[in-house]
Amino acid sequence: MKNFISVSDVPNIDAIIKKALQYKSNPLMDVKLGKGKRLVMVFLNPSMRTRLSTQIAASNLGMESTVFNVNNEGWAIEFEDSVMMNGDSVEHIKDVAPIFGQYFDVLAVRTFPLLKNKNEDYREHCLNQFIKYSGLPVISLESATLHPLQSFSDLITIQETIKPTKKPKVVLTWAPHIKPLPQCVANSFAQWMGAWGKADFVITCPIGYELDKKFSTNAQISHNQIEALKDADFVYAKNWSSYSQYGQMPSVDTQWMVTSEKMKVTNQARIMHCLPVRRNVEIGDDVLDNPTSLITQQAGNRVWAAQTILADILNTNFQP
Amino acid sequence: MKNFISVSDVPNIDAIIKKALQYKSNPLMDVKLGKGKRLVMVFLNPSMRTRLSTQIAASNLGMESTVFNVNNEGWAIEFEDSVMMNGDSVEHIKDVAPIFGQYFDVLAVRTFPLLKNKNEDYREHCLNQFIKYSGLPVISLESATLHPLQSFSDLITIQETIKPTKKPKVVLTWAPHIKPLPQCVANSFAQWMGAWGKADFVITCPIGYELDKKFSTNAQISHNQIEALKDADFVYAKNWSSYSQYGQMPSVDTQWMVTSEKMKVTNQARIMHCLPVRRNVEIGDDVLDNPTSLITQQAGNRVWAAQTILADILNTNFQP
Amino acid sequence: MKNFISVSDVPNIDAIIKKALQYKSNPLMDVKLGKGKRLVMVFLNPSMRTRLSTQIAASNLGMESTVFNVNNEGWAIEFEDSVMMNGDSVEHIKDVAPIFGQYFDVLAVRTFPLLKNKNEDYREHCLNQFIKYSGLPVISLESATLHPLQSFSDLITIQETIKPTKKPKVVLTWAPHIKPLPQCVANSFAQWMGAWGKADFVITCPIGYELDKKFSTNAQISHNQIEALKDADFVYAKNWSSYSQYGQMPSVDTQWMVTSEKMKVTNQARIMHCLPVRRNVEIGDDVLDNPTSLITQQAGNRVWAAQTILADILNTNFQP
Repeated sequence: MKNFISVSDVPNIDAIIKKALQYKSNPLMDVKLGKGKRLVMVFLNPSMRTRLSTQIAASNLGMESTVFNVNNEGWAIEFEDSVMMNGDSVEHIKDVAPIFGQYFDVLAVRTFPLLKNKNEDYREHCLNQFIKYSGLPVISLESATLHPLQSFSDLITIQETIKPTKKPKVVLTWAPHIKPLPQCVANSFAQWMGAWGKADFVITCPIGYELDKKFSTNAQISHNQIEALKDADFVYAKNWSSYSQYGQMPSVDTQWMVTSEKMKVTNQARIMHCLPVRRNVEIGDDVLDNPTSLITQQAGNRVWAAQTILADILNTNFQP
Repeated sequence: MKNFISVSDVPNIDAIIKKALQYKSNPLMDVKLGKGKRLVMVFLNPSMRTRLSTQIAASNLGMESTVFNVNNEGWAIEFEDSVMMNGDSVEHIKDVAPIFGQYFDVLAVRTFPLLKNKNEDYREHCLNQFIKYSGLPVISLESATLHPLQSFSDLITIQETIKPTKKPKVVLTWAPHIKPLPQCVANSFAQWMGAWGKADFVITCPIGYELDKKFSTNAQISHNQIEALKDADFVYAKNWSSYSQYGQMPSVDTQWMVTSEKMKVTNQARIMHCLPVRRNVEIGDDVLDNPTSLITQQAGNRVWAAQTILADILNTNFQP
Repeated sequence: MKNFISVSDVPNIDAIIKKALQYKSNPLMDVKLGKGKRLVMVFLNPSMRTRLSTQIAASNLGMESTVFNVNNEGWAIEFEDSVMMNGDSVEHIKDVAPIFGQYFDVLAVRTFPLLKNKNEDYREHCLNQFIKYSGLPVISLESATLHPLQSFSDLITIQETIKPTKKPKVVLTWAPHIKPLPQCVANSFAQWMGAWGKADFVITCPIGYELDKKFSTNAQISHNQIEALKDADFVYAKNWSSYSQYGQMPSVDTQWMVTSEKMKVTNQARIMHCLPVRRNVEIGDDVLDNPTSLITQQAGNRVWAAQTILADILNTNFQP
């Protein structure tokens, strides 16, 4: 692949899952692939798992990586064209991105939605400007609307866990939070589940919290959480703010926290979350502390997801 | 050793001092020991010497190291169990620490006391939660009550400097400061001096500033600084806040700054401090600028202290 | 060279330009030169290009580099001698700098002017204190009054671009900005152009914005921008605050932004800027977006400038 922005960049999901599991059992099998290549990881928003797992992935491929936190170390970037820059932004993406192109071989970047204007966020302007002006292969480390490395890691985790005898039921359930969050993890998970196609996939959320339909074409939608959870094999809990009342948190008249009581209706489902999780707000302690929780495994698989994508980018863009 | 939290983890102090001095004369003698191993250094408080010296120590052992500053790059961690996380803390230690366990081989962590509640600080809850939930060997880079890498480095410096013919007199003297500081450097130095046992060790401090007795069992305590300094071979100056009136700075009725005038009663003592030092508040310029000062040497020895501990941790936990 | 603080440290400008272009065509030709050597990059002010290009330069020489951001990671440093340190500054340069000397082989440091007191800034006190107390070879990553790595990179870029048949006309033009900036980039460029001596060099600026004469001895000075731009082959645009009314922004009665209209009087001049640039304040979009712009190339050449200087420092200070 040239870039990795969404599942659409992946020609064969099963093939990359297989590759990721090979890296998991043999992390250094391609340790010479990235020799002499440099990755820059640009963060417009803070990161822990994404930063650490991608750095390790690069190291496993023998690649140098450098982190650049725009807010801590740099300055505000202007993304709009033709602006008179007499305000807070110090530097234009047109001038910044080509510099990364001068210094590095691959650009990984995390952008984020402002959650104020749906069209602004959903056109992925910041990410696209990085692609347009850097001249480098670009890996999304989460964007305004998607988080493909997370979804890839989620799918690796499901693949490791499913029993071959039964098509699994996977339920993505909205969960409460104290502030409005992006839709990107949910959008992306729905998109990957749809593209994978090997599960019965249900999204359950309160009325008003339906995702953008283009990401959830193959999903059943339910507004009854308990109904949805019935016989689930995997329960992915996640908060997101409203897409229709964009970025708002319309009030909800039932309890949506995932509790061990609710989990009883599932098929001893494994709980999933992308982290960070608000304990006893999104999911109860007793669910998270249960050994069937997959959340640490999901985060651990971020390394193999990133390594697989980086290796593919290197193979595609720098073939000898 | 499995972890390095205090001098109690050290089976033989003389042996580790000897090892540290070997590393000092031959830094790369174990450059393959850490190959393929990854150290994460997690800071809940800023650091200069600790961060830099530990990174160099890891590099000398051929080990990759990664720094994670929780406040700059991450988010507030919740350390209390069973909390409804609807406030400022974004992520629970139960969920964060296992991620380090997924990505790294050794965890080094700096925590700190809030100086509000003695029991809270002295049970070392934050550090213990990292140990409990990461599943990794843990090195303290300073905790709420102790700073063992500093003390180890202090002892290396004393060992390098003492004359073999005389049992040295070592005086730890309280010194003034403009704000309340932890007791950890003083506690830890007292503990190491006690365990080492090869010096006459005196602690001098104003009334009300006595340390927790469990760390200073083998020390003479004096409230008369000049008395205490008499014939000293080493003077370790350091401020700490009150342990009995916990975290307070009860007023003091005599001058406690270490001056060249006071140093005249010593046996041409070498001055020590862990840094950062407030000049002309804790210690006078003329004392610090005197060539007999050991403070730069102490800081330099942090590398060999960290390297010795890291090597021991690697040998203990990852024996082939 | 022992240190790299200004063009005065360079015995032969043509020789270092030639070396830089050799590195550009063969980045790894001295990959063993820095083996086992450690560079620390200390930033008292944020940095993007300088940090990234210098890290890459070090890596190309096989040298380890470590970044230390004083404000983010450390604490306020006191630079004045004999101060009673009972205020905000936590640590004295006398105590900090020797630590870098303990841990590293080469110190690169970025300081900055406060723009309040001309003498304070122009005596380069902070930088000189680092040199005095670290005991290391020091590379300036920009100081209160100069930015020699930028100027070196600018000159590499000019050398790559000039036609051999004609002595080029190079114009440094003041450009507007929304806040007072240091004079260092302009001072330094003027100083390097003077030392190089192979161009007709003109500085144009509003009355009241003349640079310190010691840096611009070989320059023609003009207060008529259009006059100055006539037949220029290179136009270097940059804002700086007043030197005579130190750090102020005296009002200007003509338009000084560099526009494509103004560029018509030049000899199809290439536009230069050190970045970050305020678009449509300092320089118009149509000038910057023109393919004749050199700004990305200038930033790219920062790698080869830094690599050349680092290599020279290594050769001078650590000859086997």
